[in-house]
Amino acid sequence: MNYYGESVTRLIEQLSRLPGIGGKSAQRLAFHIINMSKDEARALAESIVSAKTEVKYCSVCCNLTDSDPCTICSSSKRRRDIIMVVENPRDMAAYEKTKGYDGLYHILHGAIAVTRGIGPEDLKIRELISRLDDSVKEVIIATNPTVEGDVTAVYLSKLLKPLGVKVTRIANGVPVGSDLEYVDEVTLSRALEGRAEM
Amino acid sequence: MNYYGESVTRLIEQLSRLPGIGGKSAQRLAFHIINMSKDEARALAESIVSAKTEVKYCSVCCNLTDSDPCTICSSSKRRRDIIMVVENPRDMAAYEKTKGYDGLYHILHGAIAVTRGIGPEDLKIRELISRLDDSVKEVIIATNPTVEGDVTAVYLSKLLKPLGVKVTRIANGVPVGSDLEYVDEVTLSRALEGRAEM
Repeated sequence: MNYYGESVTRLIEQLSRLPGIGGKSAQRLAFHIINMSKDEARALAESIVSAKTEVKYCSVCCNLTDSDPCTICSSSKRRRDIIMVVENPRDMAAYEKTKGYDGLYHILHGAIAVTRGIGPEDLKIRELISRLDDSVKEVIIATNPTVEGDVTAVYLSKLLKPLGVKVTRIANGVPVGSDLEYVDEVTLSRALEGRAEM
Repeated sequence: MNYYGESVTRLIEQLSRLPGIGGKSAQRLAFHIINMSKDEARALAESIVSAKTEVKYCSVCCNLTDSDPCTICSSSKRRRDIIMVVENPRDMAAYEKTKGYDGLYHILHGAIAVTRGIGPEDLKIRELISRLDDSVKEVIIATNPTVEGDVTAVYLSKLLKPLGVKVTRIANGVPVGSDLEYVDEVTLSRALEGRAEM
């Protein structure tokens, strides 16, 4: 289906390979790009190449960064005695947006998923262990409340506790602002289990 | 909010400028791009630049094309006595996909929209007029069934009829497979007006 000439068709084809972008969206994006100024199109293209070539993992927390160690790991304003373990950089960013956490992070880059062949050795767990010296008092496990996240949390807890560090997990419960009527049963049960005195 | 280092943040920012791509989608796309191979990322970036630099308007029908005239205008298999006028290349592609039309096209690149300051002189109407020699027997107006598309259709019809060419418009009516109950009133009225003997 080469309706628009070779170069536009190739662009549509490239865009439609991106996740969540179907044929129609790819077409709409392609036309938007064609209507951009040359400078804008070039800036977009360059940001793709430079994100791919310049980004690396922080040697401490495994977050994505241009400079090593990353800004959080090298910040003097962060507590260095707690490490929050998350599955991926987006989860880290979600917690950063709360502005309610001033410790360090560790990014696993995934979760244990036996069915998809992802084992502990595929995650940045070795890197986490190597950070646990006497200054680290607590590891907060903030993997997702999914089967894979739960499995990973249990695995990490069993691995870390013998090393003498306190291991905690973020609470499950009903989301703030939600209506109990629409909250799933597993969440309701977990919220009950996790009840705290008022 | 520079959570991921300069280059990734810039990529997210660039992607979120695209239409229909919000902050979360931009983030997801950026992470996908980072996880691509270098070659894939480069191919994507190059397709953006080359679509922008290589594409031009067909000098006959104003479709987007790399080679001029475009494949449709230069095809020996197309009837040259009818021209279908559409608002944009996507509409042309939609008709091409039906495989039910073997004439030529003319792309206006928009519709008359007084409220947005788009007048006839902003559309490829001059180019359409210049194509109307004796070989063209019919101009089919296939602008969208919207206020802007209707205004454009009426304008074109008034402009073209005096030139001695037959001007038609694609039918309005209930879409095939739809349920009358859910079809809007204007469409139902138009379908009634356009009824044909069985």
